[in-house]
Amino acid sequence: MADQETTQGDAINRLKELVEDIDFTMLTTVDAAGNLVSRPMSTRQMDENGDIWFFTGDDTKKVDEVEADHDVGLSYLDSKGMRFVTVAGKAIVVHDRTKMEELYTPSLDIWFEEGLDTPGIALLKVTPVECEFWEPKHGKLVMAAGMLKALVTKDTPDDTMRHEKISC
Amino acid sequence: MADQETTQGDAINRLKELVEDIDFTMLTTVDAAGNLVSRPMSTRQMDENGDIWFFTGDDTKKVDEVEADHDVGLSYLDSKGMRFVTVAGKAIVVHDRTKMEELYTPSLDIWFEEGLDTPGIALLKVTPVECEFWEPKHGKLVMAAGMLKALVTKDTPDDTMRHEKISC
Repeated sequence: MADQETTQGDAINRLKELVEDIDFTMLTTVDAAGNLVSRPMSTRQMDENGDIWFFTGDDTKKVDEVEADHDVGLSYLDSKGMRFVTVAGKAIVVHDRTKMEELYTPSLDIWFEEGLDTPGIALLKVTPVECEFWEPKHGKLVMAAGMLKALVTKDTPDDTMRHEKISC
Repeated sequence: MADQETTQGDAINRLKELVEDIDFTMLTTVDAAGNLVSRPMSTRQMDENGDIWFFTGDDTKKVDEVEADHDVGLSYLDSKGMRFVTVAGKAIVVHDRTKMEELYTPSLDIWFEEGLDTPGIALLKVTPVECEFWEPKHGKLVMAAGMLKALVTKDTPDDTMRHEKISC
């Protein structure tokens, strides 16, 4: 249940912090057989419009899938911190040299041998349609105690977790 | 790229270990608008047939979505350990008291106030169609060094990560 006192702006700011901090995500696409297939991706940025950016190669299965069906899901999990973010959105492949220069870092040379001049280097932009996140309200240790209390008193665990849903 | 020397049986056994050890996963379903929506779930078991089991309530959005479209995705991420598992599969809702008794633990009382007698308690069974996992071949620290080497020599990072794909 969303906190009534939290403004949507606060929730969006927190979403951006979580997405960029957790970094690794699973990108889910629909394959030609209708299967919901996923693979790990490293998040480059959530920009001021809320779009989430990744690097990719043009010659990949995920690009074929995104071009056939723009609907994608992103799943961020930090199990240790009990922080979870999900994004349902629309993805497109973008070839924008200026944006690539903004987002590129040398660590990506592992994947792109010639850096920004690697043939087929591309960006994947995910525009969120619906986002949700869950995280402990009062830090992990307090949450653990709260969950224990919930177990004993039969309260719902919602008392201890912050849960926000954002429709874009 | 899958290791040629690894048998499919080994890969399936390792998949089961990873799924049950990572535990928390994101379940992705297709909502009525066609969005790929996800939420965190705790894995109960991957059984001897390879089916993956969860508890749920009948009166939930995910059950409505699964009943309208059986295609689901599961995403397991252990970012710290660089272990990633994805499962594309078909989900059904199951009401099997014996199976529930096998899988129920008191920690679930948080969600099901009357335990196995909670109205609407149900199981969600995901039958995998295609699974993939990625993990460091030689433990995390060696992988980090390997990735550094890959960065310098421009080898692909595949040398340091085990990647298996299992079609069921």
